[in-house]
Amino acid sequence: VKIGVLGTGTVGRTIASKLVELEHEVTMGSRSPDGDALLEWVGESGERGSGASFADAAAAAELVFNCTAGGASLEALAAAGAENLDGKTLIDVANPLDFSQGMPPTLSVCNDDSLGEQIQAAFPQARVVKALNTVNAAVMTAPDSVPGDHNLFVCGNDAAAKSEATALLESFGWPRDSVIDLGDISSARGTEMYLPLWLRLMGALGTAEFNIAVCAP
Amino acid sequence: VKIGVLGTGTVGRTIASKLVELEHEVTMGSRSPDGDALLEWVGESGERGSGASFADAAAAAELVFNCTAGGASLEALAAAGAENLDGKTLIDVANPLDFSQGMPPTLSVCNDDSLGEQIQAAFPQARVVKALNTVNAAVMTAPDSVPGDHNLFVCGNDAAAKSEATALLESFGWPRDSVIDLGDISSARGTEMYLPLWLRLMGALGTAEFNIAVCAP
Repeated sequence: VKIGVLGTGTVGRTIASKLVELEHEVTMGSRSPDGDALLEWVGESGERGSGASFADAAAAAELVFNCTAGGASLEALAAAGAENLDGKTLIDVANPLDFSQGMPPTLSVCNDDSLGEQIQAAFPQARVVKALNTVNAAVMTAPDSVPGDHNLFVCGNDAAAKSEATALLESFGWPRDSVIDLGDISSARGTEMYLPLWLRLMGALGTAEFNIAVCAP
Repeated sequence: VKIGVLGTGTVGRTIASKLVELEHEVTMGSRSPDGDALLEWVGESGERGSGASFADAAAAAELVFNCTAGGASLEALAAAGAENLDGKTLIDVANPLDFSQGMPPTLSVCNDDSLGEQIQAAFPQARVVKALNTVNAAVMTAPDSVPGDHNLFVCGNDAAAKSEATALLESFGWPRDSVIDLGDISSARGTEMYLPLWLRLMGALGTAEFNIAVCAP
């Protein structure tokens, strides 16, 4: 599958490298296609990895990951262009963290809205799936690094897009039954508002490489 | 220990009954001390259970549980009286759920504040510990009803109060190492903002009797 990964930070590089390893053709999109972060990743990623602007990365792709910082995601996706996202599964990994008040960050949107919903509202023809935002980048593509039968969540309005996302997660190493479908895109409020708990758990545990398992009878 | 349980709803009755079973002397506090909910519980609870106003229940107690609805908690605690809470461990089980916009509820406070912090700020001499608000009432006092090594959280500024709360949780059936200390009372933001995820999980799982386990290397 031709996949566009928007964002050159740790999350974008981790996911893009895993996708290349899985033999997908990956175009990493950046606001600065000539920037060091992008050129470095392209240099490391072999013949299946390339770099482009947000718009060209999205245009070339059948499926798009939003791995930009949450506070910049709507702007980045606008630069990618609605016409390059229409009809495509858009896996939104971003968290709307606001560091302007210091640590720990607050959320720039929450409670009666979420970044996932804002993205779906701004790009109504994209098939937005919120996923992977509840774990650290290292855990996203190496679930075995955390012990136990822990879980991921998918949220979105389009069942086929959620299936497509779940199949990709399975290829990352997540057992299919570890991925819990929480419902429509408004359930992204749940996974985004989990971040304050995640941040406190990181402090209590002394590591970012953890996850939660849902236990039910 | 003489314990005051403020609130006559499912959470208050469940916790108060467990405390009576554990041979504590329990006074359930209500805005309506002559109301049916309180009289019914007192009738069922044997010689160790009694009922009173919020103020009398708090005054008689060495330790207080806030089991009132989150939207009414500050008012209920004001009725209990700061002088009856000063120096006492106050275990805050409430979630600030706002049902005024329909289902699912939003939070009446979140992101840069929490109900736990508001209670601590309003009653600075009380030793507030946020706990138990991440599970259904039935799970609070019967952790074995959920499989797995799942977790609870305590948040508060006073280490001795958190130890006292943790010992009570242990008597409810929670293994001591299942209780994670998240830090000061501001970490109540984490456990309260988990509620939107909890609500979606309840929908996805079809039961309220579940919990999460924190998995870490």
